Amino acid sequence: MCRWLAYSGTPIRLDELLYQPRFSLIDQSMHSRYGVETTNGDGVGVGWYPADSPAEPALFRGVGPAWNDANLREIARSTTSPLFLAHIRASTGTAVQQTNCHPFRHESWLWVHNGSIREFAKLRRDLLLAVDPALFPTIEGSTDSEVMFHLALTFGLRDRPVAAVERMAGLIEAVARTHGVPAPLQMTIGTTDGDRVWGFRYSSEGHSRSLYYSTETAALQRLYPDNPQLHRLSEETRLVVSEPLGELPGAWQPVPESSYGVIQKGADELGHFEPAAP
Amino acid sequence: MCRWLAYSGTPIRLDELLYQPRFSLIDQSMHSRYGVETTNGDGVGVGWYPADSPAEPALFRGVGPAWNDANLREIARSTTSPLFLAHIRASTGTAVQQTNCHPFRHESWLWVHNGSIREFAKLRRDLLLAVDPALFPTIEGSTDSEVMFHLALTFGLRDRPVAAVERMAGLIEAVARTHGVPAPLQMTIGTTDGDRVWGFRYSSEGHSRSLYYSTETAALQRLYPDNPQLHRLSEETRLVVSEPLGELPGAWQPVPESSYGVIQKGADELGHFEPAAP
Amino acid sequence: MCRWLAYSGTPIRLDELLYQPRFSLIDQSMHSRYGVETTNGDGVGVGWYPADSPAEPALFRGVGPAWNDANLREIARSTTSPLFLAHIRASTGTAVQQTNCHPFRHESWLWVHNGSIREFAKLRRDLLLAVDPALFPTIEGSTDSEVMFHLALTFGLRDRPVAAVERMAGLIEAVARTHGVPAPLQMTIGTTDGDRVWGFRYSSEGHSRSLYYSTETAALQRLYPDNPQLHRLSEETRLVVSEPLGELPGAWQPVPESSYGVIQKGADELGHFEPAAP
Amino acid sequence: MCRWLAYSGTPIRLDELLYQPRFSLIDQSMHSRYGVETTNGDGVGVGWYPADSPAEPALFRGVGPAWNDANLREIARSTTSPLFLAHIRASTGTAVQQTNCHPFRHESWLWVHNGSIREFAKLRRDLLLAVDPALFPTIEGSTDSEVMFHLALTFGLRDRPVAAVERMAGLIEAVARTHGVPAPLQMTIGTTDGDRVWGFRYSSEGHSRSLYYSTETAALQRLYPDNPQLHRLSEETRLVVSEPLGELPGAWQPVPESSYGVIQKGADELGHFEPAAP
Repeated sequence: MCRWLAYSGTPIRLDELLYQPRFSLIDQSMHSRYGVETTNGDGVGVGWYPADSPAEPALFRGVGPAWNDANLREIARSTTSPLFLAHIRASTGTAVQQTNCHPFRHESWLWVHNGSIREFAKLRRDLLLAVDPALFPTIEGSTDSEVMFHLALTFGLRDRPVAAVERMAGLIEAVARTHGVPAPLQMTIGTTDGDRVWGFRYSSEGHSRSLYYSTETAALQRLYPDNPQLHRLSEETRLVVSEPLGELPGAWQPVPESSYGVIQKGADELGHFEPAAP
Repeated sequence: MCRWLAYSGTPIRLDELLYQPRFSLIDQSMHSRYGVETTNGDGVGVGWYPADSPAEPALFRGVGPAWNDANLREIARSTTSPLFLAHIRASTGTAVQQTNCHPFRHESWLWVHNGSIREFAKLRRDLLLAVDPALFPTIEGSTDSEVMFHLALTFGLRDRPVAAVERMAGLIEAVARTHGVPAPLQMTIGTTDGDRVWGFRYSSEGHSRSLYYSTETAALQRLYPDNPQLHRLSEETRLVVSEPLGELPGAWQPVPESSYGVIQKGADELGHFEPAAP
Repeated sequence: MCRWLAYSGTPIRLDELLYQPRFSLIDQSMHSRYGVETTNGDGVGVGWYPADSPAEPALFRGVGPAWNDANLREIARSTTSPLFLAHIRASTGTAVQQTNCHPFRHESWLWVHNGSIREFAKLRRDLLLAVDPALFPTIEGSTDSEVMFHLALTFGLRDRPVAAVERMAGLIEAVARTHGVPAPLQMTIGTTDGDRVWGFRYSSEGHSRSLYYSTETAALQRLYPDNPQLHRLSEETRLVVSEPLGELPGAWQPVPESSYGVIQKGADELGHFEPAAP
Repeated sequence: MCRWLAYSGTPIRLDELLYQPRFSLIDQSMHSRYGVETTNGDGVGVGWYPADSPAEPALFRGVGPAWNDANLREIARSTTSPLFLAHIRASTGTAVQQTNCHPFRHESWLWVHNGSIREFAKLRRDLLLAVDPALFPTIEGSTDSEVMFHLALTFGLRDRPVAAVERMAGLIEAVARTHGVPAPLQMTIGTTDGDRVWGFRYSSEGHSRSLYYSTETAALQRLYPDNPQLHRLSEETRLVVSEPLGELPGAWQPVPESSYGVIQKGADELGHFEPAAP
């Protein structure tokens, strides 16, 4: 029950989104408005692609509440990036430790998750067994989110991301069924290879946590002709967020239930998400 | 803008008050009901007098949110004490670090504070200068609360506690006046020497944060003849809390504005609190 | 490559062994004399059985260097116990986090380990698969030590401890063989159920890390008739340590290679340790 | 009793000096060769001037041992800077907390210190009183090093750095004299305004901790014509270090006793350091 955001577009300083807007992500760490849990004080993380070496994302992950993290504030203030993911955590039971903080990273990929696998302790062993043994050693923490990432990698995230996440979801639902766990999956997921960004919204019960994407920059600029911040942004600039930042009417579109979106050069994409039985 | 409690009486396990009641102190760390800030996630501390060596309080202080502190949970579960103070912190600006966590300790004394000195950064130097130079080296952190404790020690806390706290308050108001800071003091304070417990409620503006003490045990036992937990407690058992624990109607009495109370063997004491100009 | 100690006997304050002797365990955290690594700064833990409720050990685990841990110092100063295990960690690669700190606990059992499984990342999945699925959910961290504990539990630690640890060692060596990993196991282990204490010293290559047990109290008292600390101790009092504490000639006996010892009421026991192939 | 380094010249990735050389600074955190203390595990910090906004140094400060800090590793790997200071801490008694980690920052200035003020607890109050009241509120921690920085700022560091540090040293020695503390000051100091770097080596007893500066790049390039790393560096590139990094004979020159050096555009400067009585 976390909050996250993904940014892609004109390089900006991280703190422009993490700290400056009213209802910024760091503000949400203490006072979330849309979440099941209003406090997300169990860790924070940000992964960014440096403007000059996009293939290698860097990670900062802290175990304390985001609102207190002096190092995060410094990094956000001094780092400019065209593509980054940030996450604030409200633990659903697993330990508060750096290896459980999002984003998770594998080579050039980053992954953030909001939600949970119901009765994960009961399902964890079977899910871990389904992870490619070659990927198994890179699991460092104990969260459901990291296992989900490794399942998606196992199922081909790097080649066919949407299909891989659909197989991941299908496997979780199948394993849950064998253990008698109903409606096991609740998720919004953000993932990126440093080029495109995928956002997913799904839950087994069809009642998923919120997810929004930003209106096209050109439309926003027409709507707010006098906002200088908006006019700095390229046409391609786009955000995906667990809950709206700031208070700009018209700026945010909900991602529909059981859907995914792709932010990419050229036209973005929005499609139906359907777990694939294993 | 913190929450605290002081317990004195029949030895109990710490977790009976810190974790078990609905609206327990640890529960308040995430969801305070009466505080200005509803989240108190900037550190936690407990100081207790072991049943067998009452003169030497032990301290546990953690910098993360109380709700996540595995060590606190273990200590609370395995420690029994007849007298302890606990505190959850919401920083009003100073760093989140162990030396800023309450309780503060000096020899056999413990001290917790909820509130703040307005524009403390501006007043801090003058207040530090008023601390007895012999006590100065034991100031380890950067909070207003610890300076208040050292001022009270300077003014004779160990001999005449109420007068010493009144002089401390008077000094703070006088120093604030010279700096043009209005209504500088907002406080509830709990302090103990291992034998008696003093609670103070005061603010320069006459609108102080909440403070409650528990109804006399005998009266509570008459009110709830079937509650076995209450019937274990001695007549002398008493609690002082920032906000009520649990939901027992009749169990809590507000400390009046500008007042202090003393919990001690024999009759407790309640008196008027008046800052003493220096 | 850690250091640990186990104490059983006359109840003492923890700090008498953790802090006070020259070459105490906390001193070893910065300057170990016998270890492969001289610095053990990657976490610390102590598990103790309260004198009044021996069935429920309490745990304190910190992620910073032991020499800096203010909370550990307080707990050691204020806690008296007839049976405790303490451990300082030098990570062999896994994350520095509370869930990786020893002792590990399962119901009334505690477990500490010094050593490592060679190429653990490669063997980890197969070893985890051998853990009883009912025990699997209680694995919280990522160390080899915790997996070893769960394997021993799987193989009957609670009923036949020596045989269970021998099967654990045999399994690790067998799994290593299938992966082409030579001489995989290096270990000294301390474990207790709150009544007896077992110490194990073994390595696949027959060149194990050091382990010592203390000379019988009666003999020590004859050797040092004027030492008041020794004369407080019961006949049954005994220590097992990675390296000697203090500098008392005659006080420490090395545990032989490939051996185990049992500290218990009545005569202690020393036997040959032999991994049992699965 | 810490270790530090200052780098100025061709922009490089921080990890080229912090992690990669044998005997790098992070390596020194566990195994210093020249220090009084061989373990510097009580915190780490780095302050760097971004290549594109040199007036605003960014800070990262961690309280755990440098060798374990995953965030530092990420930042060092992803940050390029023409000017940075780094520091690993071995506490001489004050708390291990972020506000006690070096570098300290004031506006565009950074400051690192290795050494100590003898009996600082006794002298602290008088030294704090000598700090400009306007600067007093920016003291956040409890170290002697931060007080020294604020004294130097008080005495004009921003205008005449060498004279200001000489007055700071003179004041400390004078205050110590009035308290009967002999030979109070032991220091190497690195400080920078983002343009020039000053290094100081001094102790009251004339037996100061080690400090080295790197040989001129041109001379090093002649000495090692085949070393490609050296040939990337500009003529102006220079390092100041507590103890040599790497093992390049001829690369390091000791700073003489009671001396200071200035690294700047054009010819560097080396001069005699003499405390100035207040």
